[in-house]
Amino acid sequence: MSSTIAIDAMGGDFGPEVTIPASLECLKANPKLKLILVGNETILNELLVQNQNEFADRLLVHHASQQVEMDEKPQHALKRKKDSSMRVAINLVRDREADACVSAGNTGALMATARFVLKMIPGIDRPAIISALPSTFGHTHILDLGANVDCTAEHLYQFAIMGEEVVKAVENVEFPKIGLLNIGEEDTKGNEQVKAASVLLEASELNYIGYVEGNSINAGSVKVDLIVTDGFVGNVALKSIEGAAKMFVTKLKEAFEKNIFTKIAAIIALPVLKAFKASIDPRVFNGASLIGLRGLVIKSHGGADQLAFKCAIQLAEIEITKDVTSKINAKVAATLENRESV
Amino acid sequence: MSSTIAIDAMGGDFGPEVTIPASLECLKANPKLKLILVGNETILNELLVQNQNEFADRLLVHHASQQVEMDEKPQHALKRKKDSSMRVAINLVRDREADACVSAGNTGALMATARFVLKMIPGIDRPAIISALPSTFGHTHILDLGANVDCTAEHLYQFAIMGEEVVKAVENVEFPKIGLLNIGEEDTKGNEQVKAASVLLEASELNYIGYVEGNSINAGSVKVDLIVTDGFVGNVALKSIEGAAKMFVTKLKEAFEKNIFTKIAAIIALPVLKAFKASIDPRVFNGASLIGLRGLVIKSHGGADQLAFKCAIQLAEIEITKDVTSKINAKVAATLENRESV
Repeated sequence: MSSTIAIDAMGGDFGPEVTIPASLECLKANPKLKLILVGNETILNELLVQNQNEFADRLLVHHASQQVEMDEKPQHALKRKKDSSMRVAINLVRDREADACVSAGNTGALMATARFVLKMIPGIDRPAIISALPSTFGHTHILDLGANVDCTAEHLYQFAIMGEEVVKAVENVEFPKIGLLNIGEEDTKGNEQVKAASVLLEASELNYIGYVEGNSINAGSVKVDLIVTDGFVGNVALKSIEGAAKMFVTKLKEAFEKNIFTKIAAIIALPVLKAFKASIDPRVFNGASLIGLRGLVIKSHGGADQLAFKCAIQLAEIEITKDVTSKINAKVAATLENRESV
Repeated sequence: MSSTIAIDAMGGDFGPEVTIPASLECLKANPKLKLILVGNETILNELLVQNQNEFADRLLVHHASQQVEMDEKPQHALKRKKDSSMRVAINLVRDREADACVSAGNTGALMATARFVLKMIPGIDRPAIISALPSTFGHTHILDLGANVDCTAEHLYQFAIMGEEVVKAVENVEFPKIGLLNIGEEDTKGNEQVKAASVLLEASELNYIGYVEGNSINAGSVKVDLIVTDGFVGNVALKSIEGAAKMFVTKLKEAFEKNIFTKIAAIIALPVLKAFKASIDPRVFNGASLIGLRGLVIKSHGGADQLAFKCAIQLAEIEITKDVTSKINAKVAATLENRESV
């Protein structure tokens, strides 16, 4: 099956310098992939000049005269940047010229624009952000990662329904194990929203395993495929883990750089250290899906390099192939119907 | 200055097998320290038989006929375990026979019992849990770690006032830098409580540096001494970091155990790996202070081993020497008075 992805080529901290080589790498890897690079055509064509012919009609440049700044207010971007690379890329998804869009741009602006242009799936109030993280069992997916600061039990329940479809598609698991993030595993723990969401999940047909704690994201005592939480807690957990990772790598480096003997040990251990580093490489997990929208939007980390941005494009390819958006749509519709008929 | 600490000798996953050797180690290290081991005297005396004379009057056994189970409901412990090692140790603090108590027992029961027996400092609603974590800058203290699930802006403000005194005492910093945990550094980010707390902190005399994100706990771009958040978020962040740590160590081990060549590299790199492991040893950070109470209570991790429990006792020694409880009391009183006079 061929897929067409619109790339916000100007987005992210590095813009076309990262988005173009990453795009070319993906085109090389998948002969059925078609990419539309959206952005300033003068800049893009200049950078593309050597590779243009290689991919012929699989690589198009679509002009957009503006670009959203990384620190721009979402409402400002929405009102004043109607011809931004981000907005035009999302328009292509709305107009069915692309199956998905990938952007490393400003998260708030991407959320607001995607919601405005694509609209929400009926029954869903706001988009949620979901991504995978490494764990001792493989991967754990977690949502929401920052789109929804205050969540009701109903929102958390919706996250579980939508997240399940993403995990099914990306991980090829039939009944993903779903946990609700809490500060203890006992029934009495947690705030009111979490307790009420647990009741909804218990009554659902989802494979709900109950409360899980923060350590379950990377290394719990049992495998969990999907962890549901509100956007405030999810974002803090994600960034706390990023900080922990950075500290570990820093301290490991310091230990090996201490003196001549440790430096010799480092040379000998180099292949092992490289393998270790690769096993926890956060770039491989780059790419978060904005779900609940009537179209597929993947958010890349703003500071993504070529490898990381490539992984975000590849995530879009998987979700297109598995038709995740339609599946979420169908699942939400079925759940709503089921409830109304009760 | 001599300090007397009541030890809940029966608490924790391992009870006296850990609490007794850790206590003896602390007595050896500090000749001015006096410990009261609270628990079943038959069991304790049996384990102590060889060391009893060595410390003479610096080591007392205080009998308590009951013990709180690790999974016991706090209210059950409060009503039915009036002669538990935990309760009696806290009673000794109330009766000024001990300057502090250290327990590795059930957190909920410890909180409820400490609050009931010791009472709160006037102006503070509930105890908060504060602990230090390693960071690339040294240490970061964070509160609340799970005592208060739903917090108002006023609660967060109280945490900052109390936490500042702990950091001053433990870290010897005059004006600790205080950050408020949020999901972005811009003014528009966060929920209502966090935004309102930020206004209170801006107007205070505290060294408030603004919003910080989850990565600031272990490795932010600027040093922060104290991070303030509600108990739900703080607990999830703490446990997420614990999970990340466990995953890192697991993957590093796997990389070195892969084959004969990596195993040889491991032998050569062993001293470096040991130094690295020591630099991130969570046991060194064991010991969380329950603050806001009219007495000093230190909570040790339930699964603490001898080294970890020793560190919790040593934290109590520092807080006694610096008279943290009186300082929190005075600071809270001054803040309240200041407000009333406005």
